[in-house]
Amino acid sequence: MATLQVPAYVPAPSEDAEQLRHAFEGWGTNEQLIIDILAHRNAAQRNLIRKTYHEAYGKDLLRSLDEELTSDFERAVVLFTLDPVERDAHLVNQSTKRFTSSNWVIMEIACTRSSLQLFNVRKAYHALYNKSLEEDVGDYRKLLVPLVSAFRYEGDEQEVNMSLAKAEAKILRDKISDKEYSDEEVIRIVTTRSKAQLNATLNHYNTAFGNFFNKDLKADADDEFLKLLRAAIKCLTVPEKYFEKVLRQAINKVGTDEWALTRVVTTRAEVDMVRIKERTVRLSRKQLPEILLETMRKCFLL
Amino acid sequence: MATLQVPAYVPAPSEDAEQLRHAFEGWGTNEQLIIDILAHRNAAQRNLIRKTYHEAYGKDLLRSLDEELTSDFERAVVLFTLDPVERDAHLVNQSTKRFTSSNWVIMEIACTRSSLQLFNVRKAYHALYNKSLEEDVGDYRKLLVPLVSAFRYEGDEQEVNMSLAKAEAKILRDKISDKEYSDEEVIRIVTTRSKAQLNATLNHYNTAFGNFFNKDLKADADDEFLKLLRAAIKCLTVPEKYFEKVLRQAINKVGTDEWALTRVVTTRAEVDMVRIKERTVRLSRKQLPEILLETMRKCFLL
Repeated sequence: MATLQVPAYVPAPSEDAEQLRHAFEGWGTNEQLIIDILAHRNAAQRNLIRKTYHEAYGKDLLRSLDEELTSDFERAVVLFTLDPVERDAHLVNQSTKRFTSSNWVIMEIACTRSSLQLFNVRKAYHALYNKSLEEDVGDYRKLLVPLVSAFRYEGDEQEVNMSLAKAEAKILRDKISDKEYSDEEVIRIVTTRSKAQLNATLNHYNTAFGNFFNKDLKADADDEFLKLLRAAIKCLTVPEKYFEKVLRQAINKVGTDEWALTRVVTTRAEVDMVRIKERTVRLSRKQLPEILLETMRKCFLL
Repeated sequence: MATLQVPAYVPAPSEDAEQLRHAFEGWGTNEQLIIDILAHRNAAQRNLIRKTYHEAYGKDLLRSLDEELTSDFERAVVLFTLDPVERDAHLVNQSTKRFTSSNWVIMEIACTRSSLQLFNVRKAYHALYNKSLEEDVGDYRKLLVPLVSAFRYEGDEQEVNMSLAKAEAKILRDKISDKEYSDEEVIRIVTTRSKAQLNATLNHYNTAFGNFFNKDLKADADDEFLKLLRAAIKCLTVPEKYFEKVLRQAINKVGTDEWALTRVVTTRAEVDMVRIKERTVRLSRKQLPEILLETMRKCFLL
């Protein structure tokens, strides 16, 4: 994978921009040329190319890439080209579109980023798409809109209010017993409390009622809303466990789900990839397939 | 009101902080001393005093003021001492407390600030109160939580999507006809659309159905939720009209509502006070009472 490093001689941004323009023109797209350029520049260089491209052709390079590239690997090039905040905005936007829709990706980004990162994603969404992220959320709005709009307090365990945790564990228990899974109180607790506070509430739930909250939410295993709610709880409390499962499923799938693999690896590379990898190796009792390692190498080299 | 100007000799911040500490100590609070200091320093000087106070006594000056001052005028001193973002966070916090609760103030801040200012208020809320603003919203959460969590796109009239405006005017009309005032679709349109887009939708509503949306929301004049929703629409589309009414009511009240007066004047001084003032003079057909002018003078001098 050494070819993915930045070469000794890097052309001027204007030259790269022109080459990219050529790649988009004519019959079919010269995909190899696009990859040759973007995969061999670092983040600062890619930003300069984007700026120059916009000045020269009056169009955002990312929009052009979006229009021209379709396959999984090519979509990965777009992900690599973006900085983390724009990458998330791009992933959410794709997830609100008909053929690439995914409530899971929206939930994943809302629940696993820091409060400030999530806000910066909303800000990037304005700049890239001229509208707000929350306008584009289509399904399960009752859960997803407060999740993406959240700006959770990021206090640590010492700031947890234990009597509040106990009271809210009781509220959750009552609502679950009545099968009121989408009750406003459940949504309020899950979408507004700090992660530390929510953790304390769920721990108390387990101690007091002898069951994990997420297990009690399995009452109806096929209910899509319940699946999404369980995944949100997992992302908020044990994100590495959630990502490990996404990776495991992507790898074990016939033909490998490269898109899921690329998404998780690019977005988590600098956050908790080491922990996710440890878990994946431990749980699947085998080495991670070569493909994942390759993707990781790409990430770290770019 | 010339006495409210910054004096030629300004004591060192440490000296001011010490004086303030003295004012809080002992039996009763020396309120005049507090006002003498804080009302005669500019914003940068007040910030330095706060910093020094915190370093010397391990406590936020604003918390001390909050504990020591109670009357309307004294609460105004706190408002003057804060920068705009912290002032809003403070107002929201007060509005979630039992004896000073006000859904109106929460709505007003959520609907009349710029998207970034509103986000900065949420950020300041974390820093000041160690929790998120949306955790503290108690009543009418279905409307108020999405309002305070909103990060609206701030496109201008040229970016308005007219077919969307028409479609959503129709949705609003249908829901209102069915008396479903708090329907999710109504909340979605009011809480997520850009102000320009919402304006276009409401204009089309008026043209197509021959009535103002807000007039159709008057079906039940005593319903508190409907009152709040109407006020939110007003704040989002014609804020100066909303503030003018608040001022007029505050002035016409027996005994003058100084607190409302101070809130509006301090928070709007640099935004649209001139327009509000013009409207107030025009509509009340008399000069603004001396008290308002005095309060304004305080604002501009500080």
